[in-house]
Amino acid sequence: MAGNSFGKLYRVTTFGESHGKALGAIIDGCPSNLSLSEEDIQLYLNRRRPNDSDLSTPRKEKDKVEILSGVFEGKTLGTPICALVRNEDIVTSEYGTLKNIFRPGHADYTYEKKYGIRDYRSGGRSSGRETIGRVIGGAIAIKALKEKNITVTARGNYDLSRLSNGADEVDYENVEDSIGGIVECVVKGCPAGLGEPVFEKLDAELAKACMSIGAVKGVEIGAGFDVAGMLGSENNDQMTVGEKFLSNNAGGILGGISNGNDIVIRLAIKPTPTIAKKQKTIDIYGNETEVELKGRNDVCIVDRVVVVVESMVAMTILDYYLQNINVQNI
Amino acid sequence: MAGNSFGKLYRVTTFGESHGKALGAIIDGCPSNLSLSEEDIQLYLNRRRPNDSDLSTPRKEKDKVEILSGVFEGKTLGTPICALVRNEDIVTSEYGTLKNIFRPGHADYTYEKKYGIRDYRSGGRSSGRETIGRVIGGAIAIKALKEKNITVTARGNYDLSRLSNGADEVDYENVEDSIGGIVECVVKGCPAGLGEPVFEKLDAELAKACMSIGAVKGVEIGAGFDVAGMLGSENNDQMTVGEKFLSNNAGGILGGISNGNDIVIRLAIKPTPTIAKKQKTIDIYGNETEVELKGRNDVCIVDRVVVVVESMVAMTILDYYLQNINVQNI
Amino acid sequence: MAGNSFGKLYRVTTFGESHGKALGAIIDGCPSNLSLSEEDIQLYLNRRRPNDSDLSTPRKEKDKVEILSGVFEGKTLGTPICALVRNEDIVTSEYGTLKNIFRPGHADYTYEKKYGIRDYRSGGRSSGRETIGRVIGGAIAIKALKEKNITVTARGNYDLSRLSNGADEVDYENVEDSIGGIVECVVKGCPAGLGEPVFEKLDAELAKACMSIGAVKGVEIGAGFDVAGMLGSENNDQMTVGEKFLSNNAGGILGGISNGNDIVIRLAIKPTPTIAKKQKTIDIYGNETEVELKGRNDVCIVDRVVVVVESMVAMTILDYYLQNINVQNI
Amino acid sequence: MAGNSFGKLYRVTTFGESHGKALGAIIDGCPSNLSLSEEDIQLYLNRRRPNDSDLSTPRKEKDKVEILSGVFEGKTLGTPICALVRNEDIVTSEYGTLKNIFRPGHADYTYEKKYGIRDYRSGGRSSGRETIGRVIGGAIAIKALKEKNITVTARGNYDLSRLSNGADEVDYENVEDSIGGIVECVVKGCPAGLGEPVFEKLDAELAKACMSIGAVKGVEIGAGFDVAGMLGSENNDQMTVGEKFLSNNAGGILGGISNGNDIVIRLAIKPTPTIAKKQKTIDIYGNETEVELKGRNDVCIVDRVVVVVESMVAMTILDYYLQNINVQNI
Repeated sequence: MAGNSFGKLYRVTTFGESHGKALGAIIDGCPSNLSLSEEDIQLYLNRRRPNDSDLSTPRKEKDKVEILSGVFEGKTLGTPICALVRNEDIVTSEYGTLKNIFRPGHADYTYEKKYGIRDYRSGGRSSGRETIGRVIGGAIAIKALKEKNITVTARGNYDLSRLSNGADEVDYENVEDSIGGIVECVVKGCPAGLGEPVFEKLDAELAKACMSIGAVKGVEIGAGFDVAGMLGSENNDQMTVGEKFLSNNAGGILGGISNGNDIVIRLAIKPTPTIAKKQKTIDIYGNETEVELKGRNDVCIVDRVVVVVESMVAMTILDYYLQNINVQNI
Repeated sequence: MAGNSFGKLYRVTTFGESHGKALGAIIDGCPSNLSLSEEDIQLYLNRRRPNDSDLSTPRKEKDKVEILSGVFEGKTLGTPICALVRNEDIVTSEYGTLKNIFRPGHADYTYEKKYGIRDYRSGGRSSGRETIGRVIGGAIAIKALKEKNITVTARGNYDLSRLSNGADEVDYENVEDSIGGIVECVVKGCPAGLGEPVFEKLDAELAKACMSIGAVKGVEIGAGFDVAGMLGSENNDQMTVGEKFLSNNAGGILGGISNGNDIVIRLAIKPTPTIAKKQKTIDIYGNETEVELKGRNDVCIVDRVVVVVESMVAMTILDYYLQNINVQNI
Repeated sequence: MAGNSFGKLYRVTTFGESHGKALGAIIDGCPSNLSLSEEDIQLYLNRRRPNDSDLSTPRKEKDKVEILSGVFEGKTLGTPICALVRNEDIVTSEYGTLKNIFRPGHADYTYEKKYGIRDYRSGGRSSGRETIGRVIGGAIAIKALKEKNITVTARGNYDLSRLSNGADEVDYENVEDSIGGIVECVVKGCPAGLGEPVFEKLDAELAKACMSIGAVKGVEIGAGFDVAGMLGSENNDQMTVGEKFLSNNAGGILGGISNGNDIVIRLAIKPTPTIAKKQKTIDIYGNETEVELKGRNDVCIVDRVVVVVESMVAMTILDYYLQNINVQNI
Repeated sequence: MAGNSFGKLYRVTTFGESHGKALGAIIDGCPSNLSLSEEDIQLYLNRRRPNDSDLSTPRKEKDKVEILSGVFEGKTLGTPICALVRNEDIVTSEYGTLKNIFRPGHADYTYEKKYGIRDYRSGGRSSGRETIGRVIGGAIAIKALKEKNITVTARGNYDLSRLSNGADEVDYENVEDSIGGIVECVVKGCPAGLGEPVFEKLDAELAKACMSIGAVKGVEIGAGFDVAGMLGSENNDQMTVGEKFLSNNAGGILGGISNGNDIVIRLAIKPTPTIAKKQKTIDIYGNETEVELKGRNDVCIVDRVVVVVESMVAMTILDYYLQNINVQNI
């Protein structure tokens, strides 16, 4: 229970269902005296929104953020920052038919099993709209990290050729399927020493942070799965004067602690499960049925996941940055 | 700070350096009235020990466990179980030369940067011997899960051909290098409903649990990185009567919550960094130097990691099992 | 940092400054399928509001609650419940003179020292209005406990005679001072077995819960400070058939675990520090000055603290109720 | 569950039953490079032991501490410190008769209800010997605080006259009863700014820390229960130049945050429940019976609680000291 919080000292708690009144977050533990405005957050929420490309859902909302607390005269107070986005573009009617069906690849079935009740409107809490809270927490973390000259940048990678069936372009009007991809994230400027021994290693927490994003099914640090076939002499990052590493197979983390190198993370993003193609499933009474999910869907969500990955990584780095203060008794 | 605990309700805190007096764990939150003996734990510690194969370090210790608390007349009391293993086969002299050097691929450099002090004898806390505490916590979790008919089984996979240079067999006497591999873990019998929304998804916590193992550089759930190239219709696990899934690309977890299918995890294990081959590095004064780590080393640790993976996965599943009680207000 | 959350499984995180846009709470871990409406919460917020008696501040706000998430078709979803109250009756102008002064008995000085910044309008986060978030979390806990036939009831006790200077009645128009009092709280119907050993004893957590209320300076369980002068034979609660106790000096808690008896807590409430009488203090530049806090103040807040105490106690009991499930391996 | 840990950044987890093999603690998060020896801890364990006065139990053990990890060449490593004390003076035979009886004032009944099993030998985990782990954690915290010139000192207060029946001295050979008392604790040198808003106020955590000690039934901060009868003008601590307070009714804490004044705590200690006088109780089958607890008991434990109070307070202050680093974004 109580799995809607992330972080120890910089602690983000999110709330909201896809078709409820609002979604948002409380950020507890943000350092005081940081300049912060709604615009700082809005920039990142805009990157999360469906864009004008053909790949995104046509559900178009402004996702306008409002800060309710924790900021006074443009500066953070050190007290909890609550910020939220009200839902506006809600068309509930179309979800009526999904009330009694478990959509394949979605969390409909597992939420029903766990809670004995669920908000069936577009997945409720398990919808991708849940990431609004993450981006709020991430935008503030990114701002705080910038003060320490630490940057977090991700980019997506995907291949649409399987959707075009040999044609030059995808026929977005009639495409029945979706495609996955890869997101890579790099942290630059992170000092050596971040990360805690044994269970709360920096790479362990980054893996949790990223795997908690709904669409992620795999996480690699540095050379990742390639290490399985490497020799020790190929994988070890040798060192030279100036505390420089001659390679970065470790992805910037040794023994769970940052080594000053770039931190490199690579994530597998699954194709969005909402597709127009006919699929087998069961209804809530256990009867087999079929479902075709036409309508407002993303063909590829990789571009929209990018800012969510940056948010989760930034929240983790900031939290560990704060945890690393005063470790030494000097 | 304080990163040596794992779990929320079934909470394991470990301690110990490679060449200190002892290593062990306190398990807090183990259900009462569970039958438990030292032998139950010893079986798993024996699997963690270097075995007689040529792949393992010749450091041979009995790793005999002693339970100090929490068990009375053969049953758990519900109070904290402290169990430990005393170090015995300690040859400190040989580590003197490593006092001032950062071994490539090891945590020597990052511990020095973080703490300003380190136990240089075989990595101290960052040594693989740290996993003794994990296996103690895991063995008890596995025992508790068996009462619920949940099993956790892992197996390793690696390819030694690169070490034999075309010969039929590896010449273990003179091999200068090490090799990585893959560990796969399957949980059977796990009921649907385990996992918490958003940040504490079951797959997120499993990713953290496994990535916290020193040698792990990648984690996949179900189809893992393959999802990046799949269509939605290929990746979605369709359902049929009897609440059965027609495939298991999700690896038993949907929306962060177990769906009753087998939970499937795949991990990348890096080659052990301790190799005989000459490598460049620096000493603690920043001067470049070279190092050859001859002596008591593992050529491939994959077989020994298997029981550690089972331990981490079992601890996670048990913790989430306990968290899932009484979620519904019935 | 991050001190704005309470509880482990039933976890309440609050936000909001006295004169910010809104105050509220996220409740994470509320059991699903519980009937819940805004009215359920409003009833308790109304008890927290200044009442019509002469004892309360004339700041009169409706404190109307809005639920933003976690409730669907009148039932809790098991997902986080966010509920908030917008501030309305904000007269900021009068606080301008307090911008540079530390009010005696208030947290102005300590917030400035801790954060280097503060919302000087009526104490900001340290204002009594912060308890709105507590009452939201408490109202829902009380509703959940009722399903288990557990009730939480507090009442206040205070003596106004010192304010009337021998007169029959207090002259509220001209009273320059405030008075403290006592709040007693009783939990009925709590089963035996709630509470965790050693550090998280039920009475320890109740003490924390109550002492975290701004005005509380003392906490007693059962016979409280009277035990200091008692003999063991007077203090021990002897038992008889039917698992009945012959007295309740323990206040329903033995060894930190509930024994099935009424849980009895007694709290010391300090007089509200905002008084009209002239007091010495310093300004933010360190210069000595004097201050008279005329205006909208409570003469005695004991009656208003009562519902806050009930809220904190109910949150604690519910959290421990949930923690006590499945402790035994049966 | 999992209630055997205390603290967030300086985190102490204890284990051990009164008549098990050993008792001890793991301290996670102790700053590195702190000088630490077994002698540093032993000094405090010696103060906890029954002394030669007539007031203490004749159970005389050396309680010799052994550090197993986390210290290297006389300095803390920043890794977990495990330290333990082996039980030696165990006379189990005499406890056989208590196997089936719930001793009045003890936790026998509640442990049985909670866990369905208990170590009946002198209370098992609920015995006062559990405080060995607290004193280990406290002794290290006190050492770390000294580096910051923060001291923690407690003293006891009790009145034996009720035990002597008018005689000049207590006849310890035949005394049938026990007596309670008061412990006062003062923290000097604590800087302003320690404590977190709302739920994790410094006084709230101190109340929890102290109330978690088995014998404590009441906690006061500063003027404590006296505030109930005070006027605001009497209770408020006015300020003058040099950031000095003209009184200390707040006990050094305003709004949950330390103000630089001495922190003053006062605790009610109940009489030890183990008395020779005949008392009514029930056995585990529910039958009424009588019990006389002759043998090795404390007449007054106040003197022995003093070092436990110092330990809990020191652990709390150190944890909050570490939490207060880098709160401001300067």
